[in-house]
Amino acid sequence: MTTYGLYIYEQVAEQDFVGPQQVFAASRHIAGTGDTIVTIAARPEPLRGAGGLRMIPDHTFADAPPLDVLVLPGTAEVARHALSDPGLLDWVRAQAATVRWMTAVCTGTLILHAAGLLRGRKATTHWAYVEELGRDPQVTLLPDMRYVRDGNIVTSQGVSAGIDMALWLVGQIHGPDHARAVRRLIQYDPAPPYTAEV
Amino acid sequence: MTTYGLYIYEQVAEQDFVGPQQVFAASRHIAGTGDTIVTIAARPEPLRGAGGLRMIPDHTFADAPPLDVLVLPGTAEVARHALSDPGLLDWVRAQAATVRWMTAVCTGTLILHAAGLLRGRKATTHWAYVEELGRDPQVTLLPDMRYVRDGNIVTSQGVSAGIDMALWLVGQIHGPDHARAVRRLIQYDPAPPYTAEV
Repeated sequence: MTTYGLYIYEQVAEQDFVGPQQVFAASRHIAGTGDTIVTIAARPEPLRGAGGLRMIPDHTFADAPPLDVLVLPGTAEVARHALSDPGLLDWVRAQAATVRWMTAVCTGTLILHAAGLLRGRKATTHWAYVEELGRDPQVTLLPDMRYVRDGNIVTSQGVSAGIDMALWLVGQIHGPDHARAVRRLIQYDPAPPYTAEV
Repeated sequence: MTTYGLYIYEQVAEQDFVGPQQVFAASRHIAGTGDTIVTIAARPEPLRGAGGLRMIPDHTFADAPPLDVLVLPGTAEVARHALSDPGLLDWVRAQAATVRWMTAVCTGTLILHAAGLLRGRKATTHWAYVEELGRDPQVTLLPDMRYVRDGNIVTSQGVSAGIDMALWLVGQIHGPDHARAVRRLIQYDPAPPYTAEV
């Protein structure tokens, strides 16, 4: 049984954590292992995402259950929104010592960086933040990688990349065939329109 | 200016409507047109999605603003969950008479069908529901199409297909170049892992 935690905050990009959440939910359905998926915020009050969705967190930092996987989603100006949550960085550092997988989507990587968890690590992030994060010589950025795993830290490119990263992750937990079944259940056969080829 | 409405309900699959929502939010950011994106439910009370996310709807059927685009997301057993919302089908039929685009993701197509809006139409849905929907000879199912447009009704395959459909839609509203910019902003360059090719 795996406990997945999704950190949410005022102005979080909904897709950044809902993509992984959908993958974990489909994985739970297929594996039948009774996995737990919870949202965690700094405070118990309702908050609103960047796309306007009003949400109520399941837990706060103080009462979250022990996690196997933590997802840190991003947003534009993550420094202003997430990093202003009191206690976030201490909580993230504490989680890093106990979770099996620490993950970040999009500018969620900047939260890991602010927590000091990317020192000497390879990572990726949203293309628009590569220059900013690249100023730190202690981080090896791989901006062309859809997701990057370094030890038990996994980071992904922007927004939609969280789906790919989460699929990779459930494949690590349950095996590649399971990940393929999850992909089929969420019918993830992407076909972006208006591409040069079409 | 475009007003996007996202129907939500108890046990809705979060990704089904958050994918389009993310596309609309990125489109709003790029276009700078002050678009409105709202969630609409049968009742004002908080509800919980299939992945466990607790949400508070912005509006009920009774007080929703006039919509340009309505998204009907799906879930497993949509008949038990969405179709038990009193007033849903009357509301959907009323919306069909006024919206510019009526859309459904995954088993959201079954809501359109129950409302009688697919008679004589082409449509698609999640692969697992093709047999059920295919029993109605009045609907022409195109299960291999990522999304299907017939008049002002657009339906998509399961879950993740809502992203592709919504990108197509903002391209219809603002042009293909705009849709490409939205795709770039949400970094939608999918790379599913564990494929046969990799």
